[in-house]
Amino acid sequence: MPWTATPDDDRRFMDLAIEQARTSWDEGGVPIGAVLVHEGRVLAAGHNQRFQQDSAILHGETDTIEKAGRLPAAVYRESVLYTTLSPCIMCAGTALLYEIPRIVVGENRSFEMSEALLAERGVQVDVLDDPACIALMERMLAERPALWSEDIGVDEGASTKGAR
Amino acid sequence: MPWTATPDDDRRFMDLAIEQARTSWDEGGVPIGAVLVHEGRVLAAGHNQRFQQDSAILHGETDTIEKAGRLPAAVYRESVLYTTLSPCIMCAGTALLYEIPRIVVGENRSFEMSEALLAERGVQVDVLDDPACIALMERMLAERPALWSEDIGVDEGASTKGAR
Repeated sequence: MPWTATPDDDRRFMDLAIEQARTSWDEGGVPIGAVLVHEGRVLAAGHNQRFQQDSAILHGETDTIEKAGRLPAAVYRESVLYTTLSPCIMCAGTALLYEIPRIVVGENRSFEMSEALLAERGVQVDVLDDPACIALMERMLAERPALWSEDIGVDEGASTKGAR
Repeated sequence: MPWTATPDDDRRFMDLAIEQARTSWDEGGVPIGAVLVHEGRVLAAGHNQRFQQDSAILHGETDTIEKAGRLPAAVYRESVLYTTLSPCIMCAGTALLYEIPRIVVGENRSFEMSEALLAERGVQVDVLDDPACIALMERMLAERPALWSEDIGVDEGASTKGAR
């Protein structure tokens, strides 16, 4: 029988993603973290690297998938991706490429860009609406707005694309 | 007046992308290359790094965007992305995140996964149907099929997703 995450599992893995987000914040970066889980085992944990590695493509989710290394297609298809913030379309596209069937999202109040596309293509997206994730993004928007705007490809001061 | 690529420009930049693809093949990797151009100037050139860096996320296009570094939103929005093969949905998502308005594709006979999505969202996709790009992929499919299947997230020997 394939592994199915319980609500307790979701909580535990989201807490790991939040830890990653906090680490990134402490490093001066964007506080978004993620964890990739297969059969209840953490394959990799990562966080946004825009500031730390001057990266345009290492968001929380892509950094995590990169850190998980080269995996067989079958592993991605049985994995769950946990992320503190609703994925941008680059990260959604990455999940769709590898056919990751479920994404657990910390919150989507601060930013939401791809959930309709993911749902359309059969990905299960579960949003926890987690206060800790919301607080991380509120601090980001208040204290590092330019870094955040850069991270989602909008001009400094512009409103976030697709934000609710 | 904003810069507009002529057909000669397209040819020249696609040739640079092909050079990148050939370099990747010679290194033992996936022969897909890309170039990002702004106002007629090459910002970065890159190629697939699955084999070379054991990377799950550095395709030709994402490697190129990563190599271009942290750019202002306005630069992406005036840039053209040249790629030897029609982009997968991860790379299409990356172009959509940064609102790159035009993608010039070497060929889409070997693989096509995202052109409808790109067109839907207003990206101009021009396909050159270039024999050199087709030949690169034919050799790849014949000589390194497992590496290619891994690169697009399908099991070894499975048919390519969305392939025509």
